[in-house]
Formats: sequence, structure tokens, C-alpha cells
Amino acid sequence: MTTNYSAEQLWQMDKDHFIHPYTDFTTFAEEGSQVISQADGMHITDTTGKSYLDAIAGLWCVNIGHGRKEMAETISEQVLNMQYYNPFGHSTNEPGSVLAAKLAELAPGDLNKVFYTCGGSTAVDTAIRLVHYYNNIRGKNNKKQIISRNNAYHGSTYVASNITGIHGCKSNLDRIADSWINHISAADMFHRPKGAENLSEAEYTQFLADEFENRIVQLGENNVAAFIAEPIMGAGGVLVAPAGYHQAMHAICQKYDILYIADEVVTSFGRLGDFFASKSVFGMQPDIIITAKGISSGYIPLGAAIISDRIWDVVSDPKTGGGALTMGYTYSGHPVACAAALKNIEIMERENILDHVKEVGPYLQEQIKTLSDLAIFGESRGSHLMLGLELVANSSTNEPFPSEVGIASRVFEHCRNAGLIVRPVGNTIVLSPPLIISKAQVDQIVSTIREAINLTMLDLANEGLLAS
Amino acid sequence: MTTNYSAEQLWQMDKDHFIHPYTDFTTFAEEGSQVISQADGMHITDTTGKSYLDAIAGLWCVNIGHGRKEMAETISEQVLNMQYYNPFGHSTNEPGSVLAAKLAELAPGDLNKVFYTCGGSTAVDTAIRLVHYYNNIRGKNNKKQIISRNNAYHGSTYVASNITGIHGCKSNLDRIADSWINHISAADMFHRPKGAENLSEAEYTQFLADEFENRIVQLGENNVAAFIAEPIMGAGGVLVAPAGYHQAMHAICQKYDILYIADEVVTSFGRLGDFFASKSVFGMQPDIIITAKGISSGYIPLGAAIISDRIWDVVSDPKTGGGALTMGYTYSGHPVACAAALKNIEIMERENILDHVKEVGPYLQEQIKTLSDLAIFGESRGSHLMLGLELVANSSTNEPFPSEVGIASRVFEHCRNAGLIVRPVGNTIVLSPPLIISKAQVDQIVSTIREAINLTMLDLANEGLLAS
Repeated sequence: MTTNYSAEQLWQMDKDHFIHPYTDFTTFAEEGSQVISQADGMHITDTTGKSYLDAIAGLWCVNIGHGRKEMAETISEQVLNMQYYNPFGHSTNEPGSVLAAKLAELAPGDLNKVFYTCGGSTAVDTAIRLVHYYNNIRGKNNKKQIISRNNAYHGSTYVASNITGIHGCKSNLDRIADSWINHISAADMFHRPKGAENLSEAEYTQFLADEFENRIVQLGENNVAAFIAEPIMGAGGVLVAPAGYHQAMHAICQKYDILYIADEVVTSFGRLGDFFASKSVFGMQPDIIITAKGISSGYIPLGAAIISDRIWDVVSDPKTGGGALTMGYTYSGHPVACAAALKNIEIMERENILDHVKEVGPYLQEQIKTLSDLAIFGESRGSHLMLGLELVANSSTNEPFPSEVGIASRVFEHCRNAGLIVRPVGNTIVLSPPLIISKAQVDQIVSTIREAINLTMLDLANEGLLAS
Repeated sequence: MTTNYSAEQLWQMDKDHFIHPYTDFTTFAEEGSQVISQADGMHITDTTGKSYLDAIAGLWCVNIGHGRKEMAETISEQVLNMQYYNPFGHSTNEPGSVLAAKLAELAPGDLNKVFYTCGGSTAVDTAIRLVHYYNNIRGKNNKKQIISRNNAYHGSTYVASNITGIHGCKSNLDRIADSWINHISAADMFHRPKGAENLSEAEYTQFLADEFENRIVQLGENNVAAFIAEPIMGAGGVLVAPAGYHQAMHAICQKYDILYIADEVVTSFGRLGDFFASKSVFGMQPDIIITAKGISSGYIPLGAAIISDRIWDVVSDPKTGGGALTMGYTYSGHPVACAAALKNIEIMERENILDHVKEVGPYLQEQIKTLSDLAIFGESRGSHLMLGLELVANSSTNEPFPSEVGIASRVFEHCRNAGLIVRPVGNTIVLSPPLIISKAQVDQIVSTIREAINLTMLDLANEGLLAS
């Protein structure tokens, strides 16, 4: 506890004043929030003193684990030395400069220029503004269409939320850029669009690539600016593309002078075993990478759009564009956030965390499949420490549970009672643990989920909701 | 220095990899950036060891001054205790809850609900989404027009940048919501629109209010959702409205069921001598207040939209809207940022910083007027520790300098050489020092600016640019 308030007082203050993302108002006024007051390593603790294994790393982000002493020291030291000065014009700071160079070293190919923000949403929003600007400077003023995908998650600014393709994120919220934001099918091996149900993996890739190319032709190649995609869709439910998908989409981008924006907010900084996944895991060189979350392991808010030299050469040409790029944030390259990110990367390198992920990640993916004997196991999917376990009403037909059953939320509740935090997304249980997870902790997660699913099936049977 | 790199290496890394807001590309490739490596109290120091009095508080934000030891301690303690867990759904953290209650206490009237972001841009962007949502839930689906003002600054997300009314912020950048974003005249005593040049202050207020009301009628009152305004325009050049303006605009908002959004990113947390200026200074109760910067004195990125109970009751009604507000950020209510803000507010209260501003602020405004004997003094304006000094080619006719002279940048350079950081904005020198500034430091600023203006006039005379 860092304040002198009682658990009851904190609960009340939260309920009366803190507007949460995605709160369920049907129950919030009565239940309020669980107050998390401590965090250390793989665990978080609430104000009742109950501890939980945090198998979602805060929210896909606490990659090096909670409460690291040397993170506190580095952050404190930076606050004392130089906690803030603005990065506008010709002014910079030490950690911001060093981190930019480090990101250029870690990012693939010629992605050497870093535009900093405070999170993924603003990095996506900025990248889109930058892409439009790039085409204005090139004299391609009509090349502005953005192609995104159904079930994509790209953040919560007005533009980022409109690029997002998850319908549940848009309930009663307005769309503002339908004239230039488009969505094509998700690349999702489990739930395929009509006409693609029985294709081989290679055929399915071609099917999706054809849809993309047809959309470009329909919009007019001179009107399409960029394609944006997560390497593996995260908040959409850990949806994995068929083999060769990203390379095929990239080839089409190249053909039509379209920029490929890889949204690596979740997949970067080790979750798939590499600092960035696009090139290392999927063999594809994007034009822009969006990163956030793992870049600082969530210790201090930070995000970035890393752009190619090719784009930079256009937008930084003093002969065009009025000589200045008139956009940016007060906290672009915040020294404390950048110092935290540098220490975070140093820890990952020193402790060989990426090698650990390459060993423990496949172990998690493999062990979760031991649950496939359970009657409501649909499929497990993902890569390394990014995993989705989809539950179905009938595992032979893959018939889904009706959403009103709230199947994943039920399993989540049983897991939480047993001291494990997972994330319910639609009918899927999502896992994204800190990268320092041990094999013993993987075993603990899998056995707790088994127990939670069993208890859920009992509940459903008692309520007459489970087909026998 | 927190890293082991030489000044030369840092300069090179910055130049090669860090994309700055508003960099002038005509000189950047050669000059690169000044690397600020230390900061303490009222001063910053660069890697050459040269120290400067920071009369802009980083960028309108370092209100309690740089490098406070107890800020470092509080931040470090929070990192160790609980550095991050997500605020989604029914989950919260201790500093986020306590700060929300504190903000509700400090904010005027029924502004009791806090939506956290990581800065002003996202707080504005979120407020606009929320206002549109509010009207959807009320069944007023056409009530979506936003009225902003020329020369307003509201941030750098795509939507926030489009609500911004400064033309220089939009060079070759696209506009995306012209169908629902409108701009009326700035409220600016010094540069008035045609037809208002010779009005009394009260008549000018009425003139601006009439323009606003006419625009509402033209757009259709059922189509206008919100008016957004800074109490004193900041980045536009510290533009002060005529007396009674905010109250008059608010009365019109009330008449037409239009929400008043006060963008207090710059004016909140003490710059005008109160935690929030809308009610205390301008006697007006807004429906939403946007804050950032001074809320944490820039130590850790934080912003917030504080909304009224009246809006909250609509958007949180479980019977409408699907029962959830499906928007928000990973770092909404980040515990480390909120802990920093709580300590920042505690310091302001304990040290009676607001009382100090009420004394030193008027002193600054008064002392700067001693420069009025200078031939290029146009006017000084502002309130308390927010000041604009506009320079003109001819002080009897107020003829402006042509922008290519770069008059404010010239004075900025001479100030910087003399160890003082001011901010050039158009033809105006902007001051927004840390709130802990002493009267002796005010005197130092004023005498340094006098000297810098004298040197600038010499330069101009030598270059044949100064009318005699």
C-alpha cells in the first residue's frame, strides 16, 4: 500500500470517480473494482491480500515481470538527473536518443527512424497521419485509403479505433473515416470466411491474398496508401494467419506501392521469441513497425512508430512540405519512459530472456493441448507466449457457445478464485504471461485451467446449459 | 549523464534516429539537436555543461520544478510496490483511485468522473468520442458538430490536430473530419477579426458570442454537440479573451444543449493560480475539463478528461448502449503516473505554490511591461505565469514583422546564448516558467529579454531589416 486509505475507501473512490475501459455497467455500480495493490515477478496481489499468478502480464505488457528493483532504480535515477524537457525542434534528451539508436539496431532492415508516443494507440494514429503526409509530399494526394482487417485491434484514439476491426469495440460509438478506412477478412485459420472452409493452408493464404488484391483494384491502386496488420491478431482472440500470409500480403503491397504497417504492439519485445516478429518470425520486412507495451514492459507508458529510411527521406526533405513536420506530442521521447525502456531491453539481453521464450513458449503451446480431452475444448492456437484457447459447445462440430453464456468469463472467474489471472475474449481464454515464466508455472497454469473448465462444465450442467 | 555515451555520440544518435516534433529540416541535418542532460529546480543543463534558466517549464508543464527528490522516491516506491496492472473492466489500482477522487475534489461543480489518458491529445480525442457517444445514447444521433476556434491548440492525434485551429500545425497534413469540425474566431484582444477592431471589451465579447450563436443556428442547434476552448489560448500565442467571454459562450451552450469542453492542459494545476481556471478565474462551469502537463508536472506522462455527473449518468446507464463503454487505453490510470500526480499535488498544497503564483504571477506580468519602451515591443498579455510578449516592426502602428524575419526566433537565440530558455511562437515570446520561480528570477528573465531584444534590434539594423 502506498497510501493510507483502507481497502474499502479505495474501492469506493474507484467506484465513484475512475472511468474504466470496457466496464460492464450492469454490474459495476454494485460490485465495483478489484483493487490490485502489489505486484512482484509473476504475481499480483489485491487489497484483500490474495495473490494471483498473472498469466496476462498486466495486459500483454509486463514482459520482464513485475516490480523489478533495478527498474525502480533506473527510473528514480533518471527522474533525479533529468525528468523532462521537451523534444520539439532541435532539442533532445539522452535516453530518447540512445533508445532511438537501439530500436534502429533491433528493428529489421532500414527501419531506422523513431517517432515516439505514449502507447500503441497514438503510435498507430501517428503512423496513419504520417503515411498520408508522405503521399502528399510525393504528390500522390489521392493515395489515402487504409486497408485493415476484421477482428484487428489497433487502439482507441478516434482513428485507431476506427481502424480496429472488432465489432464489440464499437458499440454505439461513431465511425468517422469510412471514406478511407476499409476492412478485409481476418487471417484466421479457425474461423474462415465463406468459400475458404475447406482449403489447404496454402490455398487459404492465396484466397486471402486474392481478396486483398481485389480490394486494391476495386479502390484503385492509386488510392491505397497502406495495409495495417498484427503479425498474430491479439485482442481479436489470438488469431493465427496461414503460413506465408504476411509474405503474400507484403508482395502485393510492393506491387502497388502500398506501405505495410506491422502493428507489433503485442508481438514485439520477446513475446514470440524475438525483439520484433515481422522479419524474424514471419520473414517479412514492413515499412513501418508499431510498438508499445513490451518496449518498457509497461513500467512507464511508451509507444513508437519506427519508419523506414525510404519514408524518412521523403518526409524530411527540406525542399518540400514547408521544411517541417508539424506534428508530435509533449511527451514524445519522454526521458523517464525511454530510460525505463533501455533498462528493460538490457535486462532482456543480459538474462537471455528471448532464448528462454524460445524454450518455454513451445512448452506452453504443447502443454495447453493436453486439455483437448475436455468436452468444450475447441482449439488452442498462437505462438510462444501468446496463446488463445477457444471453448466450444460441442468439440466434434465446433459449434460455438452462445455469447450470453459468457463461457470465457465463467472460466476466468474460476481461474481467479484459484489464484490465476487469464483473459476472457469472446469464447476464448487468452494467455500472455510475463516472459520469465518457468515450466513449473506453465504446468500450474494448465492444471488450474483444467480445473476451472471442469468447474465451469459442472455449473453449465447444473444450469441446464451444457449439451450432453 | 545516465549512459556512457559521449556528447558527440548522443548528438549523432539523435540526429540519425529520433524524429522530433516540428523539426526544421532545412537546418536539422547539419545542426542536429541540443542534448539536455540534467535538470534541477528552475534550471536545465546541456551536454556541454551549459546551464539555462528554464522559463518555459519544459513545455508548459514542469510546474513544481525539475528533479525533485521526493518525486523520484515516490515514483520508485510505486514501481516497486505495483508498477502496472490493467484498469479494464472491474479492475483498478490504488493511486489511480485516490487521484480520481482528488481530481473530483479539485475540479469545479459536478465534474466527478475521470477518464485517464497519457497526455492532452488523447484526452481531447477521448472527450470527443465520448461526446458523440453521449449523444448516440441520448438518441440525438445527428448532434455531432464540434465548434473550435482559429488559433486553438488541442493536440496531435488525427482528430485533436484537426480540432486545432493553428494553420501552421497543418502544413501538408490532411483534414479528416471537415464535415463535423468547425472553427470560429479566436478570442484575442490584440488581433481582432474585421468589424471588431474598435469595439469596447464588452462589445467585443458580444461580437464573438454573436458569431458563435450564428454558427450554431447555421449548423442547426440539433446538430451541434460541443464547443471546445482553452481559457487562455496557449500555443496560439497566449491569446486572452475579452472579459466575460467564457461566461457568454457558456450561456449560449446552455441555451442550445451544447457541451462546453474546457481544454485546461496548460491552465490547470496552478499556472493561473488555481488548480483549475475555468470556474475560479473565469467564473464558468464547464461540462468537461481536459487536463495534462501540470497534473504530474511532466514527470510521468498523464492526461485526463474529467466529465460531469450529468454526462456520466447517461453514458453509464446499463439499460442503454450495450451496457459497456467500449473504449480506453492500456495505460489509462497508470499507477506510476497517478502516484507521481498525487505527490505533485501534495507538494503544491504543502508548499502553498498556488498562493505563491498569485503573488509572483502578477509581478511577472507587471515587470515585463517595463520593456514597453523598446521600439519593437508590441504588447504583453496573459495572466499569472502564462505570458506572451508580441514583437512588432513598428510599435506605434503595431505593424507586424514579416514572418521570414523570424523575429521571435532571433530573440530566443540571444536569450539562449545568455542562459535563458523562452519559447518563440510566431512573432511572440512565450513564458511559462515553473511555478516556484522567485521574484529575483523574474527580474533576471526580464533583464535578459531586454538585452536579447536590444541585440536583436542591432542585428536587424545591421541587416537593414529594421525601420528606423
